[in-house]
Amino acid sequence: MTDSPQHHSQTAAIVECAQEVRATAPLVHCLTNSVVKEITANVLLAAGASPAMVEHPEEARVFAGIANGLLVNVGTISEEQTDAIRAAVATANAQGVPWVLDPVAVGGLPQRTELARELLDLKPTAIRGNATEVVALAGLGQGGRGVDSTESVESAREAAEALARRTGGVVAVSGERDLIASSGRVTRLTSGHSLMPLVIGTGCSLGAAVAAYLGAARSSGMSDHDAVVAAHAHLGAAGTVAGRSAEGPGSFHVRWLDALHALSPEEIAQVVELEDAA
Amino acid sequence: MTDSPQHHSQTAAIVECAQEVRATAPLVHCLTNSVVKEITANVLLAAGASPAMVEHPEEARVFAGIANGLLVNVGTISEEQTDAIRAAVATANAQGVPWVLDPVAVGGLPQRTELARELLDLKPTAIRGNATEVVALAGLGQGGRGVDSTESVESAREAAEALARRTGGVVAVSGERDLIASSGRVTRLTSGHSLMPLVIGTGCSLGAAVAAYLGAARSSGMSDHDAVVAAHAHLGAAGTVAGRSAEGPGSFHVRWLDALHALSPEEIAQVVELEDAA
Amino acid sequence: MTDSPQHHSQTAAIVECAQEVRATAPLVHCLTNSVVKEITANVLLAAGASPAMVEHPEEARVFAGIANGLLVNVGTISEEQTDAIRAAVATANAQGVPWVLDPVAVGGLPQRTELARELLDLKPTAIRGNATEVVALAGLGQGGRGVDSTESVESAREAAEALARRTGGVVAVSGERDLIASSGRVTRLTSGHSLMPLVIGTGCSLGAAVAAYLGAARSSGMSDHDAVVAAHAHLGAAGTVAGRSAEGPGSFHVRWLDALHALSPEEIAQVVELEDAA
Repeated sequence: MTDSPQHHSQTAAIVECAQEVRATAPLVHCLTNSVVKEITANVLLAAGASPAMVEHPEEARVFAGIANGLLVNVGTISEEQTDAIRAAVATANAQGVPWVLDPVAVGGLPQRTELARELLDLKPTAIRGNATEVVALAGLGQGGRGVDSTESVESAREAAEALARRTGGVVAVSGERDLIASSGRVTRLTSGHSLMPLVIGTGCSLGAAVAAYLGAARSSGMSDHDAVVAAHAHLGAAGTVAGRSAEGPGSFHVRWLDALHALSPEEIAQVVELEDAA
Repeated sequence: MTDSPQHHSQTAAIVECAQEVRATAPLVHCLTNSVVKEITANVLLAAGASPAMVEHPEEARVFAGIANGLLVNVGTISEEQTDAIRAAVATANAQGVPWVLDPVAVGGLPQRTELARELLDLKPTAIRGNATEVVALAGLGQGGRGVDSTESVESAREAAEALARRTGGVVAVSGERDLIASSGRVTRLTSGHSLMPLVIGTGCSLGAAVAAYLGAARSSGMSDHDAVVAAHAHLGAAGTVAGRSAEGPGSFHVRWLDALHALSPEEIAQVVELEDAA
Repeated sequence: MTDSPQHHSQTAAIVECAQEVRATAPLVHCLTNSVVKEITANVLLAAGASPAMVEHPEEARVFAGIANGLLVNVGTISEEQTDAIRAAVATANAQGVPWVLDPVAVGGLPQRTELARELLDLKPTAIRGNATEVVALAGLGQGGRGVDSTESVESAREAAEALARRTGGVVAVSGERDLIASSGRVTRLTSGHSLMPLVIGTGCSLGAAVAAYLGAARSSGMSDHDAVVAAHAHLGAAGTVAGRSAEGPGSFHVRWLDALHALSPEEIAQVVELEDAA
C-alpha cells in the first residue's frame, strides 16, 4: 500500500467497519446453499458476527425483520427454500434490512436463473459473485441467456457497473483481485491465497460476511460500498495469513478460521492491497 | 474437585457412563438442524457412539425404534422434517427409546414454538438448551410468549425445575457452568472454554451426546440424570483440553474432536468441576 | 508391492487415472446425503475434481448431462431429492454420463430400499458400499429382504460379483481391504487408517471420487474398473499418510484433505497394496 490520502481513508474505513462488526455482532439471516451452511456459520462467528439459518418460509418472513442483514444464495434452491427467500426478501425490503444476492451458477440452470431475475428486480443491497456469474446476471437484465465461459474479474467490470446502476446497490466480483463497483466508484482489492478456492464455501461465506458488514456499517452511518470492501478485506486478509503456514486445503481451512478471529482491524487493513477509483 | 463422598459417587457415575458409551456404541437417530449435521455426526463418532440421520418421515418412524436414543433439534425445521419428528417421537415413546429435545430459538419464531409446545406434551426424556431457550420453553407451558433476552444459567434454574416437574425428565441448561435438573436434584458442572461458542454446533452436538449417553445408561441401569451429567462432562472436558492449545476457533474445533476421542473416562471426570445438590 | 508385471500394470493405471483427474478436473454432480455435502465437496476439490450439488429436480435433469460423472447416495433421501435422483439418472443414462450408486443402509429402511431396487435396474456404472450394504443390495435383486448384520468385505465377494453381472458395471466393497469386482476381474486394495471410519463422510466421499475418476478415465479411454481402483487408491493412500501424524479424528480429517491434495500420482500408487485377479 502507498501512503496517499485516498489509501489512508480507505484503510480507515476498513478498520472502522471491522471494529463495528466486532462491537455489535450483527445478526445475519442466511438462506444459503446446503453444502456450505456450517462453514458459513463458522466464518460469521470467527469474524465477530452471529449466524442464523432460519429456513421455514413463515419463520423466514418474521426473522428477516429481526436480523441486521440477510444473505440469499441460490446454490441449492428447493421449492421450500425459494418460498423462504421470497418471504425474507419482502420483509427485508419492507423494513430496510440490507440483503445480499449470491447468484451461484446463474445463467446455465433454469430455476435459479428465473429466481435471480426476479430477485434482481427487488434491488439487492449488494450482489457478490465470481466474474462468470456477474456477467451472466447482467445479461439477464437485457433478456440475454447468460454466459457459461470463465471470465476474468476485470472483464466483468462493465457487467458489475451495469448491475450497480440497475439496482442502485454495490456489486462485488470476487477473484484473485476483487472488484467492487457502485455508482461512480470502483475499488480493486488484492488478497487471499491460491488454496482458498480449494475449500468449499470460502466464496459463499464471503456473501454472508458482506451481509454482516452491511448490517454493522448501516448502524454506524458508514457507506454500503465501504462495508462490502471491508468484508472482502477481512476474509481475504485472513486467507493471505492462513496461506503462509497451510500445508494443503485442510489446514488452510483451519488456519483461515483462526486468522479471521485473530486479526485485528488494523492488521486486516495492512495485509490487503487496495486501489480505489472514484 | 473435593474428596467428599458425593463427589466420589458423581465421578464414578461419569466414568461408568463414558465407559458404557464406548463399550456399546449407542446408535443415535439425529433429527437435527441442517447447519450442524456434520459436526454432530463427528462428535458422536469421536465420543464412541454411532450417528444416523434418517430424515424421510416413513423411514424415521421405523428407525427411531431401532436406535438407542433420538435427538430432536428444531433449529431448521421444514414441513417434511416436522413430519419426521412427529413420526420418530411417536415410535420412541411407544418403544421406550429415550429422546432429547433441543429447543433452538424457541419463543421468538412461530413454527418451532408451536412444535416445541406439542413436543413438550410428549414428555422428552431430556431437554437441553441455553438459558434463554429453557426459560422460553417453560413459559410456553404457562401460556406465555417466551423470553428473547439473554438469561444467565442460574436465572434459568426455576424454569428448568418447572420443566423437569412437568415432563418428569431431566432438563439441562448449558453455559459456562451447566445446570442439570431433575426431580429433587440439581447438578452444576463447570468445564469448556471461551472458544467453544465460536464453533457452530458445539451446543447442538451436546444434545446428540445426551441422547447417546441416555441410551448407554439405560442399557446398564444408570439414571437418566447421571447420563445427562456425563454427556456434559465429556464434551465440556474435551473443550477444556482443546482450549489449552487452540489458536482460534478453527484449531479449537479440530482439537476438540481429537480430545473427545482421546480422553479416558477417568480423565473426563478429573477435568470437570462438579457440584451436586439432592 | 511385488514387482510382477501385473503390479506394474495396475500401478501404471492408478498413476495415469490420478494424472487424468488433475489434468481435466472432472465436474461431479453429487446428489448425496445431507450430512456429508461439505466434506464431499472438499474431497473432490482436494483430489483435483470439481463438485456441484444441484438438487432441484428440474435443474438436476439438466445438470447431469453437463457433468462428467454423477453420484447418487441414498443416505438421507427426501421426496424432492428422490425426484432429483430419478431425473439425473435418466439424463446420465441417455447421455452416457457414468454414475455411481452408494446404497447407504439399504435393506433395513423402506424408502431407500425401494429406490435402490429401482436404481439397480437402471444399471449404475459403479456401486460403492460397505459389505453389509452390498450384500443387502444383491439380496434385493433376488426378492430378498437384505441383511442387517455386519459382513466382512471378503464375505461380500459373491454379492459383489452377482451385482457386477447383473448391472454390467463395477462393484466396490469398501473396508480395511477394499474389494473391487467387475466381469471376470477382482482387485483387492489395502490402504487407509483406523481413524478413517471415525470421520463422517470418508466413505461417502469415496463414492464421489469414484464418479470423478470414472469421468476422467472415460475421456482418456481407460477402463471403468481401473478408474474405481484408482479412486480407492487415492483416498486410501491419503488416509494412510494422514494417519501417520494424526492425533485423533479431528486432525486426521485435516491431514487427509492435505494429503489428498499433496500426494503425487506416483506416491498414491506406492502407498497402497494391490492384489489383482483376472
